[in-house]
Amino acid sequence: MTHPTIELAKELISRPSVTPLDEGCQELMIERLVKLGFRIEKLHFEDTLNFWARRGDQAPVLGFAGHTDVVPSGDPAKWHTPPFEPTIIDDHLHGRGAADMKGSLAAMIVAVERFIAEHPNHQGSLAFLITSDEEGPFVNGTVRVIEHLEQRQEKMTWCVVGEPSSTNHVGDVVKNGRRGSLTGELVVKGVQGHVAYPHLADNPVHKAAPMLADLSSKHWDNGNDYFPPTSFQIANIKAGTGASNVVPGELDVMFNFRFSTESSSKGLVQRVESLIDSYGLDYDLKWTFNGEPFLTDTGKLLDAVRIAIKQVNGQEPELLTTGGTSDGRFIAPTGAQVIELGPCNATIHKVNECVKVNDLIQLTDMYQGIMAHLLTE
Amino acid sequence: MTHPTIELAKELISRPSVTPLDEGCQELMIERLVKLGFRIEKLHFEDTLNFWARRGDQAPVLGFAGHTDVVPSGDPAKWHTPPFEPTIIDDHLHGRGAADMKGSLAAMIVAVERFIAEHPNHQGSLAFLITSDEEGPFVNGTVRVIEHLEQRQEKMTWCVVGEPSSTNHVGDVVKNGRRGSLTGELVVKGVQGHVAYPHLADNPVHKAAPMLADLSSKHWDNGNDYFPPTSFQIANIKAGTGASNVVPGELDVMFNFRFSTESSSKGLVQRVESLIDSYGLDYDLKWTFNGEPFLTDTGKLLDAVRIAIKQVNGQEPELLTTGGTSDGRFIAPTGAQVIELGPCNATIHKVNECVKVNDLIQLTDMYQGIMAHLLTE
Ligand SMILES: [Zn+2]
Ligand SMILES: [Zn+2]
Repeated sequence: MTHPTIELAKELISRPSVTPLDEGCQELMIERLVKLGFRIEKLHFEDTLNFWARRGDQAPVLGFAGHTDVVPSGDPAKWHTPPFEPTIIDDHLHGRGAADMKGSLAAMIVAVERFIAEHPNHQGSLAFLITSDEEGPFVNGTVRVIEHLEQRQEKMTWCVVGEPSSTNHVGDVVKNGRRGSLTGELVVKGVQGHVAYPHLADNPVHKAAPMLADLSSKHWDNGNDYFPPTSFQIANIKAGTGASNVVPGELDVMFNFRFSTESSSKGLVQRVESLIDSYGLDYDLKWTFNGEPFLTDTGKLLDAVRIAIKQVNGQEPELLTTGGTSDGRFIAPTGAQVIELGPCNATIHKVNECVKVNDLIQLTDMYQGIMAHLLTE
Repeated sequence: MTHPTIELAKELISRPSVTPLDEGCQELMIERLVKLGFRIEKLHFEDTLNFWARRGDQAPVLGFAGHTDVVPSGDPAKWHTPPFEPTIIDDHLHGRGAADMKGSLAAMIVAVERFIAEHPNHQGSLAFLITSDEEGPFVNGTVRVIEHLEQRQEKMTWCVVGEPSSTNHVGDVVKNGRRGSLTGELVVKGVQGHVAYPHLADNPVHKAAPMLADLSSKHWDNGNDYFPPTSFQIANIKAGTGASNVVPGELDVMFNFRFSTESSSKGLVQRVESLIDSYGLDYDLKWTFNGEPFLTDTGKLLDAVRIAIKQVNGQEPELLTTGGTSDGRFIAPTGAQVIELGPCNATIHKVNECVKVNDLIQLTDMYQGIMAHLLTE
C-alpha cells in the first residue's frame, strides 16, 4: 500500500492547484526529474507555469504530457472526504485530481524512475511537457510550449498524454485521436419594428428559420473507423427585447462542430458559408478554431502501447476518439504520434473524484513498458 | 386663442399623470360633468382611478371613452419645453399628453357642455368612461369598468374613443376597428448535454427549426376591405447557457398575432397547435388573449361621425384599422359600435409631443356634431 506512485499522487493532490494555479506540483516533479538527469526548462507564460524536461539528445523522443491544474472542487461539504486531503477508502484514492490527472503524473514519474534505473543508457530521449492550464482557457499552456519548441525545431516523435482514457479498468480504452472543434457566431440582420407595423420591420428569426432548419439537418460526413460522423449543434440562439410587441432587429446564433478527420475546419467553413449565402441573408459570421482532429491509427507508439497494456493485464485496449478535447490536439499537428492513456474517467470534474489504487499501480507498469518497447532493443 | 378646449387641455397637461397616476385630472373632468347633470360613479380598482358618468336614463347611450394617464416623458432635457408645462409655440400646444389624449378629453368636455347648452333635453343618454390605466398594463382600467357595467347590463350603444387617429389633420382618419392581438409563449423541450456527446442530448433548436420555418411562412388569412392580412411575428427566441459546448435543454419562443376579423383567437390557437403537433415536438404553450378584432363598418355611429367631420372641414375621413391596440377592444365585445377619432398621432409617446391648436378646436366641433346627429332629431 506504500507504492511510490500512490505516495506521489497523494503529495500532488494535497496541493490545491485549481486552474491556473500549480501550487508547487511542478517543483515536486522537477526535483525528481533533475535527479534522473533531465534538463529542465521552466516556461512561464502570463499566469501559467509550464515546464519542458528532456533526458538525452538523440531522436526518437518519447514524451509524457500532462497538467498539474485541476477543476474547482465545488462545495467541499458535498464531498465524502475533503477534496484536497487525499484519502484511501475501499482501495480507491479520493481527492480532486486523483483521476484527472495527478494519478497519471505520479505514475509517469515513478515509471521513468524505474525505467532509468534499469536502462540508464536508453536509446533516444525521454521528455515531459507539463502545464498548469489544461482545465483553463488553454492559451498559455501546451499551445505556447509547443510554439516555443517548434521555433527551435525540437519535436516529440511519440507522445503519451496522461488524460483519464479508461472506462472500467485502466487500459481498457486508449484514445488514439480526438475530434476537431470549430465554433461559429452568426448574426443575422433584420429591421427592428413594432408588431403592429410588420411592413416596416424585417424579422430576422423568420428569415433565418429555413436556413437553420437546413443547417441542423445537414449530413456533414460519415465518420470513419475511428471517428463518429461530424456533429453540428446550435448551442445558443437569441433574438428579441423581451417585449411581446417588438420585432427583433437581430438574431444571434452560436454553433459548434465536433468533426472527424473526414472533414476539416476549412471545408466546414466553406460549406456553412455557402449554405447561408444560398438563403440571401444579411449576416456576420465569426469563426473560432479550437483544433483540427488528429488520429494515430498505426505506428510504433500504438504497437508499444498495446503490448505494454497486454503485458500488464492480458487485454487488448479499445481504440476510441470520443469525448471532449485534450491538449493532444496541440501536439499532434507537430507530426508527433499521440495517444492518451490514463485511469478511469467516471468521476472526473465531479464531487468525490477518485481512482482505483491498483489502476495507478498498473498504469505505472504500462508507462514503463511503453518506454521499454520504444527506447530499448 | 382662449378657446375653452385649449384652456382645459392645458390644465390637464400640467398634471403629471404618468400611468397609472391620475393627479386630479379626473376630478377636474368630474367637476364640469356634475354641473351638466351627469351622475358620477368613481370606480377605483387597485392603483387605478376610473369613472363612469351618465346623463339620462334612456337608450341609446352615446359614450365618450378616454384615459387621463400618459406615458413617461423620458429625459425632460430632451424636450424643447418642460413636458408638464403646456406651452403654445407656432399654433401647436406642446406637452406630454397633448395628443394622447388630454387634448381629446378637453374637446369632449367642452363639446358636451356646448351640446347640452343647446339641447338640455337631448334624446337617449350621454356617458363618459375614463380610466388612468390605458398606457399601463390595462388590467384595472377599462376592462374592469366594462365588467362592472356588464354585470348590471348597462351598455353603450355607440362609443367614441378619443385616441389620436389622425395623420395630417384632425379627422382625416377615423379608426373604425382594430386588429386582434394574441400572444403565445412556447417552450420546446429537448435534453441538455455536452456537444461532445450529441447522442446523449436532444437539441430543441434543431427539432423546432423546421416548425418555426413553417410557422413563420404561413399565410393566415387575406384580410378584408378594412383589415390587412393577419400577421404573425416571433418577438423573442432564446436557448442556451451562453457556453459553446452545451446543447440547450429548452427553446423559448414568444410570438404575437395581430389579426383581422377574418380570423379569431380560437381559430389561430387551433391552427398553431395543430401545426406544432404535426412536428411531433414535446412542448408547452401558454396563450395570452389581448383582444379580439372589432369592426364598425356600418351603422348610425359611423354615419354621424362622417357627417360631423364633413360639416367641420368638408372632407371624407379615411377608415382604417391599422396601428396598435386601444381600449376600444374591451368596449366592442359588449355590442357597442366603436370608432376612434382624435388628433394627429405623429408625436405621441415621443419627446416634444404636441397637437395643433386648431385641430383641438375642430375636434370639439366634430364631437359636438356627432352628439347632435345621434341624440337630436
Ligand atoms: Zn485532464
Ligand atoms: Zn392613448
